[in-house]
Amino acid sequence: MPTVASERGAATRERLIHAAAELIPELGWSAVTTRKVAARAGVRPGVVHYHFASVSELLGETAVRSTHEALTASFRALEAAPDVASALDGALKMLDGYAEDRSTALLLTESFLAATRDESLRARLRDELSEYRRRLAAWLRHRAGTADADASATVLAAALDGVFLHLALDPSLATPALRAPLGRLVAARGQEEEENR
Amino acid sequence: MPTVASERGAATRERLIHAAAELIPELGWSAVTTRKVAARAGVRPGVVHYHFASVSELLGETAVRSTHEALTASFRALEAAPDVASALDGALKMLDGYAEDRSTALLLTESFLAATRDESLRARLRDELSEYRRRLAAWLRHRAGTADADASATVLAAALDGVFLHLALDPSLATPALRAPLGRLVAARGQEEEENR
Repeated sequence: MPTVASERGAATRERLIHAAAELIPELGWSAVTTRKVAARAGVRPGVVHYHFASVSELLGETAVRSTHEALTASFRALEAAPDVASALDGALKMLDGYAEDRSTALLLTESFLAATRDESLRARLRDELSEYRRRLAAWLRHRAGTADADASATVLAAALDGVFLHLALDPSLATPALRAPLGRLVAARGQEEEENR
Repeated sequence: MPTVASERGAATRERLIHAAAELIPELGWSAVTTRKVAARAGVRPGVVHYHFASVSELLGETAVRSTHEALTASFRALEAAPDVASALDGALKMLDGYAEDRSTALLLTESFLAATRDESLRARLRDELSEYRRRLAAWLRHRAGTADADASATVLAAALDGVFLHLALDPSLATPALRAPLGRLVAARGQEEEENR
């Protein structure tokens, strides 16, 4: 149990972010209020205002955090796999896991939508995404020897995000078969072959 | 100008859907009311209720229509191209066009979010998407000779949708370079080559 005031403050802040991350998918972004976050976190409304200048600031922080965590989990899973094929299998299995519970898809989609209406949030999510692409490109270059690693990382990130969203509409999508086309897209010698045709 | 009452009715119905399609990205799904749609379409609120049982029904119809139109436009552009490479170039150029004006991305994302919360809308959008994938798979089989056309169509649809969303966050994404990895993913002999390694 935290004993120092600043640690207790940090723990409360985390609890507020966690409560907001639950409420955004349940109620929708614009229906989340200070009062509801406080009730979910089991604190008085004043505590929310002590930690965040406004409910928008709390929601923005929650959006950035959730996006960061989802992208980090995705990248770590890829990185830990012994080879590219099993990395892609693992990424697809992870997306299947999200499909069973739509709340992550809802949370990230609400965050994306809010970002299209808020320039500073948009810049923060754009940076998260471009950092993810950068790491993905370095991984592809290193592990798959992908010649056009930057473009391939952009398409791979988009494809995984798209499958994630399409699974939320249609959880019956058969993901294991998707590994072959994903594997081809990052295939090292693919581009040269295509150019030599 | 329509002279028959039923034609005038159909035209009014279209005007209401058009007004809703403008208001959803501007205000957000849940902020669109009968009164606001009526004002935008230049009709009395009662006219909305004459055509739609509720504002939800109007919004659902708008979501299905907008999704159908975006997917149809995307497929027609692919189909009209002389070869697969220029079809993909055209698809990317179309996505660049959407990125300049975020309203289509907002409209479709709001529709997706609403669908995750409404089972009947979800079934309708799922059907639109699976019809798009089916047509894309047939096109890939026919034009690119893609062996695993169903899986490739699923990944291609997801990738295009993902690029569409990522462009809304980051319009500076360089799309022309994405054609090579997209081309590899639908490449006919890609899978056999990978398996023969």
